[in-house]
Amino acid sequence: MRIAQVAPLAEAVPPKFYGGTERVVSWLTEELVRQGHDVTLFASGDSETSAKLVACCPEGLRLAGIRDHVASHLAMLYHLRRRADEFDVIHFHIDLLQYPLFEDLNHKCVTTLHGRLDVPDFMPVYRTFTGMPLVSISDHQRGPMPENANWLQTIHHGLPAENCRFSAKPKDGGYLAFLGRISPEKRPDRAIEIAKAAGVKLKIAAKVDKADQDYWDEVIEPMTHHPLVEYIGEINEDQKHDFLGNALALAFPIDWPEPFGLVMIEAMSAGTPVIAWRNGSVPEVIKDGVSGVVVESMEEAIAAVKTCKAMSREGVRRYFETRFTASVMARSYVAAYESLLAGDADAIKIPGLTLGAAAALNGATNGAAHPVLRAV
Amino acid sequence: MRIAQVAPLAEAVPPKFYGGTERVVSWLTEELVRQGHDVTLFASGDSETSAKLVACCPEGLRLAGIRDHVASHLAMLYHLRRRADEFDVIHFHIDLLQYPLFEDLNHKCVTTLHGRLDVPDFMPVYRTFTGMPLVSISDHQRGPMPENANWLQTIHHGLPAENCRFSAKPKDGGYLAFLGRISPEKRPDRAIEIAKAAGVKLKIAAKVDKADQDYWDEVIEPMTHHPLVEYIGEINEDQKHDFLGNALALAFPIDWPEPFGLVMIEAMSAGTPVIAWRNGSVPEVIKDGVSGVVVESMEEAIAAVKTCKAMSREGVRRYFETRFTASVMARSYVAAYESLLAGDADAIKIPGLTLGAAAALNGATNGAAHPVLRAV
Repeated sequence: MRIAQVAPLAEAVPPKFYGGTERVVSWLTEELVRQGHDVTLFASGDSETSAKLVACCPEGLRLAGIRDHVASHLAMLYHLRRRADEFDVIHFHIDLLQYPLFEDLNHKCVTTLHGRLDVPDFMPVYRTFTGMPLVSISDHQRGPMPENANWLQTIHHGLPAENCRFSAKPKDGGYLAFLGRISPEKRPDRAIEIAKAAGVKLKIAAKVDKADQDYWDEVIEPMTHHPLVEYIGEINEDQKHDFLGNALALAFPIDWPEPFGLVMIEAMSAGTPVIAWRNGSVPEVIKDGVSGVVVESMEEAIAAVKTCKAMSREGVRRYFETRFTASVMARSYVAAYESLLAGDADAIKIPGLTLGAAAALNGATNGAAHPVLRAV
Repeated sequence: MRIAQVAPLAEAVPPKFYGGTERVVSWLTEELVRQGHDVTLFASGDSETSAKLVACCPEGLRLAGIRDHVASHLAMLYHLRRRADEFDVIHFHIDLLQYPLFEDLNHKCVTTLHGRLDVPDFMPVYRTFTGMPLVSISDHQRGPMPENANWLQTIHHGLPAENCRFSAKPKDGGYLAFLGRISPEKRPDRAIEIAKAAGVKLKIAAKVDKADQDYWDEVIEPMTHHPLVEYIGEINEDQKHDFLGNALALAFPIDWPEPFGLVMIEAMSAGTPVIAWRNGSVPEVIKDGVSGVVVESMEEAIAAVKTCKAMSREGVRRYFETRFTASVMARSYVAAYESLLAGDADAIKIPGLTLGAAAALNGATNGAAHPVLRAV
């Protein structure tokens, strides 16, 4: 299949430092190439890929010091639009700008929604451009969206199977791991309280953003002065594997509807079960009793430490392999692309959708929403 | 003429507080209606106008707490696009999103560039979408733009003639006035030094933004402890008229290429001459010796105080009336619209521009820039 992957330009693909979306786009792109597809990646020029790279700006915009990213994305979409005929499917990982520009090509377009959807800022687009076929990264993520959104499928993120290698046994009995970012909604305080109450070590590998410096200084840092708690600061991708592999469990005590927590599947890849609060995508990602424990209270979380110690790490890894590898993700996307393209025959029966951009745009003068294209 | 005015949605038109662009859009819209045109204003729902208002969001986005404004503008453009046939001319005052969406309607579109253009962020759009007819708000503003930009005209901003009423004589001999915002590039320090050296009073009516608090605390506030210097804080539109009318001159000692300084024409409207540093639009707005003095050094600025005292305030006001009223601005825009529409016959000879959006978009697959539509 001839597939265009359209990445955000904020970071390179894969990102040099942070950038969850760009990381997932890279995994998907590489795996689609490996599975034999003809993939073209629209991304920043410092991206690295085995697909054909179309460099849409010299380097990731954030590190280049570009603060307003709209113009760079519009220029990318201009060039993509002129090459649209070259692709069977155009897969967007960017937020908004593609909606009006590819309205007449919805029959071969997919947008994966990578962020949380319960913020009002983006709603005018979701309510107005209802024809774009959408992929959610968890079922829970869909909650705040308008009823007539054109959902194609939910496809969970997947990780290359070898990225976080399986660790059969944590060194020295292991520890509870907290990995990510220090911020109130990630609830590192809960992780600390769980460790203390369960009498196990906790290692915190997390960065502190400027916005969260006060929270760290005033709330969390004082809590880390305890013999069971160790703050090891920020770690890189390489260190991550050992950090997760040597943990007896990952603490994921989040307090917000995270649409998909990549760190959960990274832990599972290492064979490390996850103790996760029932929030956002958690119940879809963690199979309770198999790849971790889904909890709703401190009591349940503390009890879950013991449960995790007894859990089969091989079982956790097996569950990861059947559900959350990049290979599974890529096959799910190809199936979604195929269902989209198969649905095309139905879609063209709906008037106003196959008239081309100019006709479609000029045809309706009353400002009413477009007829909705639903993929079969 | 059937004219659509397309305002930014950040603030109401006119704005409740700040918002230079929205203020100018309001003046232009009201004057076009007064001159007998059929004007439709696309703006936030809390806007007030004698034109037909199309409410594109309930209220100005900034005060509504919406931080990402892209989606709201895309929804506005969706509805505008479907009504494009209703207008002879579509006049945009927004930054970027209209470029790709109205490419095939460039023959009846105009975009006024309201900001400075020497920032790299927006360049990918200016370099890519070269067909949009552009109005600069000063000739100097054009400097950083690509050579093939489709300039239609420079049209200076204009102010309703009655907004800042003429004041024949400042009370008690007057003072030097500094009005606007405390920030390093506005050089309030220069204003203070000029007043001290010339032995005249200085009144500073200016807000201090959060970003400039340190600059105020550490640099400017200490300089205000001088018998000739008075800081009166922020003032509203009503207070502005007296503040400017009672000044012997406005100090405008800027250190940056301001594309157009509204406060200069507000002062001139009151009959108050302007002492302005040669920067950005200044030499286009100030007629040296008639409506103020254009300076390049402290010595010149200090000497200019005496020159301004001797200047005819009636002459300043007359110069304002011939060049910078809303009525002059609106007539200039109507002339520009007419030249654009007259140029249409030529434009359609250029291949690729009259094929409609879909054809134009699909026609070129090499990503090369469009042929440039130049208005006659």
